[in-house]
Amino acid sequence: MTKPLNIGVIGCGFMGRTHSNAYNRVSNFFTTEYKPVLKAVCARSADSVKAFADQWGYESVETDWRKLIARDDIDAVDICTPNNLHKELAIACAEAGKMILCEKPLAMNVEEGEEMCAAVEKAGVANTVWYNYRRVPAVTLAKQLIDEGKLGRIFHYRANFLQDWTIAEDLPQGGAALWRLDAAAAGSGVTGDLLAHCIDTAIWLNGGVTNVNAMTETFIKQRKHNLTGKVEPVGIDDACAFLCRFDNGSLGLFESTRYARGHKALYTFEINGEHASIKWDLHDLHRLEYFEHRDEGRLRGWRSIHVTDGDHPYMKQWWVPGLQIGYEHTFVHQVADFLEGLASGTPVSPTFREALETQKICDAVLASAKSGQWTDVG
Amino acid sequence: MTKPLNIGVIGCGFMGRTHSNAYNRVSNFFTTEYKPVLKAVCARSADSVKAFADQWGYESVETDWRKLIARDDIDAVDICTPNNLHKELAIACAEAGKMILCEKPLAMNVEEGEEMCAAVEKAGVANTVWYNYRRVPAVTLAKQLIDEGKLGRIFHYRANFLQDWTIAEDLPQGGAALWRLDAAAAGSGVTGDLLAHCIDTAIWLNGGVTNVNAMTETFIKQRKHNLTGKVEPVGIDDACAFLCRFDNGSLGLFESTRYARGHKALYTFEINGEHASIKWDLHDLHRLEYFEHRDEGRLRGWRSIHVTDGDHPYMKQWWVPGLQIGYEHTFVHQVADFLEGLASGTPVSPTFREALETQKICDAVLASAKSGQWTDVG
Amino acid sequence: MTKPLNIGVIGCGFMGRTHSNAYNRVSNFFTTEYKPVLKAVCARSADSVKAFADQWGYESVETDWRKLIARDDIDAVDICTPNNLHKELAIACAEAGKMILCEKPLAMNVEEGEEMCAAVEKAGVANTVWYNYRRVPAVTLAKQLIDEGKLGRIFHYRANFLQDWTIAEDLPQGGAALWRLDAAAAGSGVTGDLLAHCIDTAIWLNGGVTNVNAMTETFIKQRKHNLTGKVEPVGIDDACAFLCRFDNGSLGLFESTRYARGHKALYTFEINGEHASIKWDLHDLHRLEYFEHRDEGRLRGWRSIHVTDGDHPYMKQWWVPGLQIGYEHTFVHQVADFLEGLASGTPVSPTFREALETQKICDAVLASAKSGQWTDVG
Amino acid sequence: MTKPLNIGVIGCGFMGRTHSNAYNRVSNFFTTEYKPVLKAVCARSADSVKAFADQWGYESVETDWRKLIARDDIDAVDICTPNNLHKELAIACAEAGKMILCEKPLAMNVEEGEEMCAAVEKAGVANTVWYNYRRVPAVTLAKQLIDEGKLGRIFHYRANFLQDWTIAEDLPQGGAALWRLDAAAAGSGVTGDLLAHCIDTAIWLNGGVTNVNAMTETFIKQRKHNLTGKVEPVGIDDACAFLCRFDNGSLGLFESTRYARGHKALYTFEINGEHASIKWDLHDLHRLEYFEHRDEGRLRGWRSIHVTDGDHPYMKQWWVPGLQIGYEHTFVHQVADFLEGLASGTPVSPTFREALETQKICDAVLASAKSGQWTDVG
Repeated sequence: MTKPLNIGVIGCGFMGRTHSNAYNRVSNFFTTEYKPVLKAVCARSADSVKAFADQWGYESVETDWRKLIARDDIDAVDICTPNNLHKELAIACAEAGKMILCEKPLAMNVEEGEEMCAAVEKAGVANTVWYNYRRVPAVTLAKQLIDEGKLGRIFHYRANFLQDWTIAEDLPQGGAALWRLDAAAAGSGVTGDLLAHCIDTAIWLNGGVTNVNAMTETFIKQRKHNLTGKVEPVGIDDACAFLCRFDNGSLGLFESTRYARGHKALYTFEINGEHASIKWDLHDLHRLEYFEHRDEGRLRGWRSIHVTDGDHPYMKQWWVPGLQIGYEHTFVHQVADFLEGLASGTPVSPTFREALETQKICDAVLASAKSGQWTDVG
Repeated sequence: MTKPLNIGVIGCGFMGRTHSNAYNRVSNFFTTEYKPVLKAVCARSADSVKAFADQWGYESVETDWRKLIARDDIDAVDICTPNNLHKELAIACAEAGKMILCEKPLAMNVEEGEEMCAAVEKAGVANTVWYNYRRVPAVTLAKQLIDEGKLGRIFHYRANFLQDWTIAEDLPQGGAALWRLDAAAAGSGVTGDLLAHCIDTAIWLNGGVTNVNAMTETFIKQRKHNLTGKVEPVGIDDACAFLCRFDNGSLGLFESTRYARGHKALYTFEINGEHASIKWDLHDLHRLEYFEHRDEGRLRGWRSIHVTDGDHPYMKQWWVPGLQIGYEHTFVHQVADFLEGLASGTPVSPTFREALETQKICDAVLASAKSGQWTDVG
Repeated sequence: MTKPLNIGVIGCGFMGRTHSNAYNRVSNFFTTEYKPVLKAVCARSADSVKAFADQWGYESVETDWRKLIARDDIDAVDICTPNNLHKELAIACAEAGKMILCEKPLAMNVEEGEEMCAAVEKAGVANTVWYNYRRVPAVTLAKQLIDEGKLGRIFHYRANFLQDWTIAEDLPQGGAALWRLDAAAAGSGVTGDLLAHCIDTAIWLNGGVTNVNAMTETFIKQRKHNLTGKVEPVGIDDACAFLCRFDNGSLGLFESTRYARGHKALYTFEINGEHASIKWDLHDLHRLEYFEHRDEGRLRGWRSIHVTDGDHPYMKQWWVPGLQIGYEHTFVHQVADFLEGLASGTPVSPTFREALETQKICDAVLASAKSGQWTDVG
Repeated sequence: MTKPLNIGVIGCGFMGRTHSNAYNRVSNFFTTEYKPVLKAVCARSADSVKAFADQWGYESVETDWRKLIARDDIDAVDICTPNNLHKELAIACAEAGKMILCEKPLAMNVEEGEEMCAAVEKAGVANTVWYNYRRVPAVTLAKQLIDEGKLGRIFHYRANFLQDWTIAEDLPQGGAALWRLDAAAAGSGVTGDLLAHCIDTAIWLNGGVTNVNAMTETFIKQRKHNLTGKVEPVGIDDACAFLCRFDNGSLGLFESTRYARGHKALYTFEINGEHASIKWDLHDLHRLEYFEHRDEGRLRGWRSIHVTDGDHPYMKQWWVPGLQIGYEHTFVHQVADFLEGLASGTPVSPTFREALETQKICDAVLASAKSGQWTDVG
């Protein structure tokens, strides 16, 4: 017997699409007790929310999120809005007893995040944050290898998230399409948007971060603002890099920018351990590079693992060896795990509380960039 | 106003899954006048067809393909059976006035293919063959570049399709999962299964083939047969390689095998032209390698194009630059093009008649391997 | 005590340079009983041979090869002339009791090669042919792995040698710089120049070839001839591809061309065995790609081995791990092995007799291309 | 008319070999007025210096460097000793009026470096420091492109130098082979040994560094010392990473370690500019990766340039397109440029004064790592 899980999605931008797709597809590929039902989608514009609902097959629409949250026929709310609305929505959902799937980053800052955690924990509702890259099969495989001890002691962790889409000086900021460039809506620039992904993966794979030392830069100091129509100062960080020390004694080096010509969405990480090393990048997300020092000396080399076999994480559900999946599948995997967690009563990682750790590091990074000092993580 | 297109699928193996997924997803990403409806699926086993229908959302099931074809509420039939059934089914469909989407290769041989072409042309029904790799965005981009003359005169075309899944001697042949190893069901081995893909792409990109000179091998001479339970001779080609001359004067070199340790589904092609060259492989299907001789001398090099931008074929419908799609999307693209063809009244390539060209080359290859002679293509 | 080995080189073109460099450098890196002394170099033009001798440190010059061969102070003659002179020179050397190091290919054809073998064997002089790519450390490592049985039964061998330097129609043929385009001087085109390398490596790694089936093409039919000043027919093969069967039952596929835009000197080979596969290419000659099926399933992948460690062939003599060597070092290795062979009395592979095998295959390839038939190897 | 340049080398370790090779080879490949003569080599051990002289063809040996410097028949002294001797030797050479070629890093610290600069400038002797990686053809090509403005405004510079040879806990420190692990001989660990290379290239390509913020780590705190035989604290930095700002406003990120399993000598850098980006790594030093945003949109991609053509820096002197050179050639290029500088009267970069800039940054890095503060560069 399968059980419906009625979903209400708030926000129908890019993330609204990736999540809708995930709900639509999960039951074709994963066998779960709960099955998501696209009950309702909510956005301010009646026209666009109607079009979105038609395209994705939602049963109904709302233009006021309060109404959506108030509906009895909604079990779980998916928050796909800009960051500055996460807190208010999440707390309202929790108070209404709804499960919550919230886009990353969790909040605008640690203070907001703490309130959100308190709310969901008080309400006892299932909650998760969409740090989807954990569920790239190659990344999940990396997690398996580290947990099994294949790398031994870890010495180094380095990660980049490089893009190049904001180099043009005449690109405006703000509004529906470009809220990520508007500090009021986004909270920060690459730190919350891109480094948050790198940090989430890092602490999942390598444990907590002790302290950080960061540098940020805003290369283009002012841009026309889409909401005001005026040229206004740019409040976000265009680039951010930081050094850190992990609790396990390893050293970390992180960098993100939207000014790295030639890279569209190049999230990469590399981990160097005593016995083995791992590399991964988002531009070829179906591969994991693995170096095993215990291989015979003459024959040591970085292995390019095509992570498409039945014994690779999640891959048994898809096609046959050699046939790659892509970006959107990471969201399907997160939904599948969330549904499984519901059935078994296990929280699905990252919960709000776990995602708060990433928020703490992001806040420390921004504080360090401002002070020029090593900064302890909350 | 959208119009439903009622689909009936025959066969629920691997290709049944890829096609079902394509019908399910196309309307979330492509705006088409016709929208596929999963009306019915048919397979011999009532249990497994029921389970398949539940998983993919089919409205009904059949266990006798004749009944499916006879139904008035079916507009188009999708043939996903082993090759030895294509002809009978396709002709029955044509006679019933159904549109047909037929898995590749078209037929067991040219004679069957000719009958099938005659039937669909006589009936005047829309028809296409699932040579899905044409619709990998990187491959479609290659087609654009060649058609625009960017390569100039073509000198060389080479393609491989390398796998390694049949090396174990104790792998049996025949039956539901392994019909591709059974000559009675498949017609041939790697020639019809893998080289057919290479040939379809080649003639699409580089025009017709004049003559061929081939070599085949069956490395493991006998295997247990799943249907008889006895060890029986293996009738298929495990490996096939051939030289050829294209009508445009270029030279071709093709190879396929299931004994290339380390390659799961490595379909690769490379085209060398006077001004530019192109390379592609299925293991990193979202990339196209391009060499442009007209670049400044010091700065010439193979460009690794990450085919994920909005101006790349099909990619505007998916995510944002840098985020890759995978194998299954090629089928979605073929459905989208088929639906668009219906609306505009344009046949969608490859039609049965076009796929017959590939069949002719496959037949010539197998004949040449037998005779040891250069063999003209039909 | 070291012993001098007095070298006389005939020809001071490109190969004269690579060999001179090898003689000059070997004693800095390899400890051998014999040490080469650059006694004399010979070429027709007194001016250019003098300049060459100055640049490389030869003690004397000759303009008549007969005089060089007649000199008592020459122990070994190195033949670096165009192919059409190999036979006459080698036989004269043998009759004069000189050791011979002859550029590849051995001869213009098998008949010449047979005479040369007979001459050196009758004279009992040390002899070798400069198939230098055997001594790329990565290629020698491949040989070790195959000989140790790491690949198990071999199923496939494929090799390419792709260049793009003759695509321009106004490139002339013949004369000092372009004798490789002149059939009278070179004997054949890519077959003797490039495929000969591929074949030499192949039979060294994978054993003898039984029969071949080839196709050749001359894309540009006539070119101005530097010696006559007239436009004349082009007699060489611009491109050649062939299928073959090895004596061990494996299938071979070889291709060479000078019309593959984007490839300067891309010699590649790949070998697929039951347990492991190997790939190598000349454009990154310091790497060997290795796939080991016996690795743990989840972690199988092509290993990119950076062949620069002390336990890799020849590398202990050079720098430290991670620091690559290049093209010219292959000649140094061949000289080192030749000197060691002299000291130990062991012939150094490939001898004339061994290189004759490559010649036989080249002749069979050219004959097959002409007849269109499968052709047995000598 | 060529003029001899009599060289005296002090030190016959790894760098003694690379420099000796460079002096030996330069005249075979480069036409220069001055030609180096291997006049004398000096080391403490009479036996080993004699063996070294024999292997490389030095005319004489010394065991006291004062004697070597005092000889009238020495024009130029090459300092290949551990870092702690650079200052004393260089000043003595300058006072004796000898030209100086000094191994990198220039000195143990800025104070020493200042004294050395003062000495050579007062003496007016030609001087250079062996930052050899500038003269990898691909790196020199990068310099050309930047100087031509092909990248436009620079946003980011990042460089790594990753090794893995000191991970074993039982590796000792100090003595002839392992002086790089002994702070007394080396001054610092990876900072002076490896980051100094990265910094030299960076300031050559991207201009001066304003300030830095660094982190160092010594993973293995004590090791047996080869000179004392006792377990002693390790004084060097095993790993060092730093953030920096360049004078041109771009951001820098540098990291070096000897604990990056899987990397032997992976020096990499990447530069992101407004119009184009560049990447290079030492493990494939004959390639430059180049991304040109002004390419047609559909066809943008990282170009892998095989830097082996006649129009690439230095390459006309070597072989033919497609045939790669290696590590040692960088030293040959530096000698060739030094000889040309002598003839033309132009100082050869980097001079002591230029190398002092790198020293200043290294000192600032080490100071910042100690203080935890952003530190201005000298």
